[in-house]
Amino acid sequence: MSGKFIVIEGLEGAGKSSAIATVKKQLEAANIKVICTREPGGTPMAESIRDCVKHAWQEKVTIEAELLLMYAARVQLLENVIKPNLAEGTWVIGDRHDLSSQAYQGGGRGISADKMTTLSNLALNGFKPDFTLYLDVEPEEGLKRARGRGELDRIELENLSFFERTRARYLALCNSDNDITLINTMQSIDEVHNDIKIALSGFLKDTLCIPG
Amino acid sequence: MSGKFIVIEGLEGAGKSSAIATVKKQLEAANIKVICTREPGGTPMAESIRDCVKHAWQEKVTIEAELLLMYAARVQLLENVIKPNLAEGTWVIGDRHDLSSQAYQGGGRGISADKMTTLSNLALNGFKPDFTLYLDVEPEEGLKRARGRGELDRIELENLSFFERTRARYLALCNSDNDITLINTMQSIDEVHNDIKIALSGFLKDTLCIPG
Repeated sequence: MSGKFIVIEGLEGAGKSSAIATVKKQLEAANIKVICTREPGGTPMAESIRDCVKHAWQEKVTIEAELLLMYAARVQLLENVIKPNLAEGTWVIGDRHDLSSQAYQGGGRGISADKMTTLSNLALNGFKPDFTLYLDVEPEEGLKRARGRGELDRIELENLSFFERTRARYLALCNSDNDITLINTMQSIDEVHNDIKIALSGFLKDTLCIPG
Repeated sequence: MSGKFIVIEGLEGAGKSSAIATVKKQLEAANIKVICTREPGGTPMAESIRDCVKHAWQEKVTIEAELLLMYAARVQLLENVIKPNLAEGTWVIGDRHDLSSQAYQGGGRGISADKMTTLSNLALNGFKPDFTLYLDVEPEEGLKRARGRGELDRIELENLSFFERTRARYLALCNSDNDITLINTMQSIDEVHNDIKIALSGFLKDTLCIPG
C-alpha cells in the first residue's frame, strides 16, 4: 500500500511544530513508517532555494520571483522525496505545501487565482495531499508567539494586513476543500492537541479501515 | 526617449561575448549610454539563483524547477535593472533573455509550448526585447569552442542531442519573429562581426531615424 501525505498548515506562530510532533507520535503508535518534510526546503537544492527566498535582499524581491522560487523548491521536494517515499509505503508529514503558496502568495500578495492555478498545475500536475490540518490563529497572536522565538525572516517581517489577507485565504480554502480540517489554536494546548488527535483518528479510520 | 533592449542569443560557444563587445562599441560610437546584463543573473538575488541552477547537485534537478528558477532570476533582473534603465534612456545589452528559455527548456528539455507561453506571460507580462541577434552555430562546433574555455556547468554538460533540439527551436523561433536576426557564426570572425554591424546599423537607422 502506498503511503499518505499529511500536511500541517498555518500562519507563523500557529503551532505547526508541536502539531507535527503530535501527528508523528500518533502515526508511529499505529506502526506507520513516517518521515517529515518542510517547505520551502527538504532537499539540498530546495534548502538553497529556501535561503534565497528568505534572505533579506537589498533589492526589491518581486512577488513573481518569490512565487516561482516557492514552486521550484516544491517540485524538487515532491519528485525527489515525497513521491518516492509514498511509493515505498512511507507516510510523509509536510510542514507546509501548496496551500501555503495559495494563502501567502495568492491571498497575502494578491496574485490572481488564475495565475496561481496555472502555476500550481505546471509544477504539481494535479498532485494533492491526502489530509491537511490547517491550524488557525489570529495573526496578531501568531506573530506575538513567533516573535518570542527570535529573529524573523523577510516574509515574517510583513505587516499585519498581509497576514490578515493570508489568513482570510486560508479560511476560504478550508471552506471549499473537504480534505482540509480546521483546528482552532486559540484554545489551550491540551485542547488543540486533542482536536488534532480526533481529526487524525478520523482520517486513519477511513484510510486504514480501523473499526471505529 | 526610453532606451532599447538588445539581446544576444545562441548556444554555448556561439561567440556571444565578443558579439556583445562589438554591439557595445557600435552603440557607444553613436553616443548611446549602454549597460550590459547577463541571464540568469544580473542582480545579487538573480546571481544567487544562477549559482543554484548551474550547480552540480547530487539530487535530480527537475526540468520544472530549472524552468521556474530561470524565470525567477529573469523577473528580478527585468524589474530591478532592465526596466529602470530603459526608463532613464539607457540602452541594455542582454547576454541571453527569454528566447534562451524558449530554446533550452522548451526545445531542449521538451516542455510544452503551452506551458512555456503561460510561464512567460506570468513572469514577463508581455515584455519583449526590441532587437535580438541570434548567433547560430552547429552544436558540435560550439561545444568544442566552449570546452576549450575550461570547466562546463551542469547544463553545458548535456549531450549533443539536447543542443541539437535547442538549436532547432532557436531556428524555428528566428523564422517566426521579425525582431530576431540570425547571424551565421560558421564564418571567419571578421565576417561574423561585419554581419553583426550591418544588422545593428539597420536597427539603429530605423530606431534613431538616422538617414541611410
